[in-house]
Amino acid sequence: MGATETPAAVRPGRKKKRNPFEGKGRARLARLISEAENSSDRAREIVNSVLHRTGRAHVIGVTGPPGCGKSTLIERLALQLRKEGSGGGKTVGIIAIDPSSASSGGAFMGNRVRMREASRDRGIFIRSMASRASPGGIPRAACDAIKIMDAAGADCIIIETVGAGQTQTDISRTVHTTVVVVQPESGDIIQAMKAGLMEIGDIIVVNKSDLAGADRTATSLRHMLETGHYGSWVPRVVKVTATSGKGVAELARSIEEHRRHLEASGELAQRERTMALNEVEKIIEEEMRKELARKMEKIKVQKDIESMVARKVSSHDVAKKLMMRAAGKCRKKR
Amino acid sequence: MGATETPAAVRPGRKKKRNPFEGKGRARLARLISEAENSSDRAREIVNSVLHRTGRAHVIGVTGPPGCGKSTLIERLALQLRKEGSGGGKTVGIIAIDPSSASSGGAFMGNRVRMREASRDRGIFIRSMASRASPGGIPRAACDAIKIMDAAGADCIIIETVGAGQTQTDISRTVHTTVVVVQPESGDIIQAMKAGLMEIGDIIVVNKSDLAGADRTATSLRHMLETGHYGSWVPRVVKVTATSGKGVAELARSIEEHRRHLEASGELAQRERTMALNEVEKIIEEEMRKELARKMEKIKVQKDIESMVARKVSSHDVAKKLMMRAAGKCRKKR
Repeated sequence: MGATETPAAVRPGRKKKRNPFEGKGRARLARLISEAENSSDRAREIVNSVLHRTGRAHVIGVTGPPGCGKSTLIERLALQLRKEGSGGGKTVGIIAIDPSSASSGGAFMGNRVRMREASRDRGIFIRSMASRASPGGIPRAACDAIKIMDAAGADCIIIETVGAGQTQTDISRTVHTTVVVVQPESGDIIQAMKAGLMEIGDIIVVNKSDLAGADRTATSLRHMLETGHYGSWVPRVVKVTATSGKGVAELARSIEEHRRHLEASGELAQRERTMALNEVEKIIEEEMRKELARKMEKIKVQKDIESMVARKVSSHDVAKKLMMRAAGKCRKKR
Repeated sequence: MGATETPAAVRPGRKKKRNPFEGKGRARLARLISEAENSSDRAREIVNSVLHRTGRAHVIGVTGPPGCGKSTLIERLALQLRKEGSGGGKTVGIIAIDPSSASSGGAFMGNRVRMREASRDRGIFIRSMASRASPGGIPRAACDAIKIMDAAGADCIIIETVGAGQTQTDISRTVHTTVVVVQPESGDIIQAMKAGLMEIGDIIVVNKSDLAGADRTATSLRHMLETGHYGSWVPRVVKVTATSGKGVAELARSIEEHRRHLEASGELAQRERTMALNEVEKIIEEEMRKELARKMEKIKVQKDIESMVARKVSSHDVAKKLMMRAAGKCRKKR
């Protein structure tokens, strides 16, 4: 957009108003993220090399049930952020976590198609990523992508996840500000409560606010949140109609308010500690998972499986046997 | 209901028409499942002791996006199955996996409340279970509960999971027959395809078929499934209105057809092998997860975390250090 391109040679340190998502920077970013996704060793190299340039981006998580309009909302939010900030607008990285397809194992890649307008904006970088086997729904590589985008100079990074199952705690441990999206009067709110979404939302968006019941939904949510115990930050409830863009500016303001609250209250450091621990756990979990897969591959389980099908031996006994065999390489006790 | 209670003393082996969910049997079942849930060692004891009586129940998975009406459908299906089978109707075990709440860590326990009619039927046993930290959304304890209900004499066991994120492959590896539930014309179908749900469904239920567009949805689903490659079984599409019960008898018939197909085609043995392997993996994963938690607790990570927040060291380096320290108890190479 209006960003001034500063040649790398004359760049004094890291200039804020350079657009990192233009030209070669864009291609390089895409390549680094792919490399990090494909290999944790390479991820380590990349992250280590850019580490000193990280720590400036505001990381925002957007979650909610399928069909609540997350993608449209994120596109609108990104375009809104592009209009904000001094000179040229904020640059925005988007990481859309797609539930892995059972057969292909790859991401659906539908988000880049859905976010047509945003994908034409050179200040926005969109990346789809498969959730793979990551327990919480957010793969290790998403954390690497955050670091890489942050180092490149993204002002804001938005992570999109489907909020069902375990993903809810995972997203809040990965970002600074968690935005939970629900629809008015739908079963969404009960489902979201069930999934623990309300407990992690710093901001609750009632999307599709042109639908009947939006006011009532927002009011009851506010009541619920104010009477709950939520520390020094009472979660904001924002009514949005993502399709028309109504309420999106207010959402951006609420996100900014939350960022300031984190800084002023000292909670930012606490969140960053949680994020750091979360990253480490993700890496270890991935490695353990790979290790398990390697072990299971090597060990001949076919006979055990047949015995199990014949109800001669239980899964617990087979698991114990395998674990003891794997631990056999360790001294005495594990 | 009409089941004849045979006193345990005169029971010749294991009589089919005894209702295992009545009286003391019911309380015992609840207790055993809780014990198995709370301790994997105890689960091993219990499963080993009942193993010889397992292998008769038909295990059915029901999955779909939040709000598609799974609970109501399952209740209706269970009540339908109660009317079927010779003498006294089939007995049905239900395991409802609730997404864990972030703060409480426990299940929402909403299903027993929602399935009011089913919970009054003495031939139906309903159990809610938190998904906890299980990567695929189905906890190890659910597999134990299947075994325990099977051994007790359940004819059918229905597992309910929310179909988003990773849960999709997990459910199909846990059951004989996978039922995927969608709503007509909703974004559900695209979301379900995204989540790989269509690839795992042996039966697709278009629920809320009284809504507009149900016929069109069912027709396009059928077309899609017939033109795809699905081996010897072409997934059935069944229109259901769970609230009124319309189509539920047909669903029960389709499930029975699928069971017969599995037996006749020899695919049953293959599925049981997959289920067996899945169980073993779940147990090992849980143990590895516990082991990781124990290690992380012992190791002082506070200083590393602070270095990470200060951007002095990367998550990858900290993870590597911790893993090497943990592996340090092993000889030379792991």
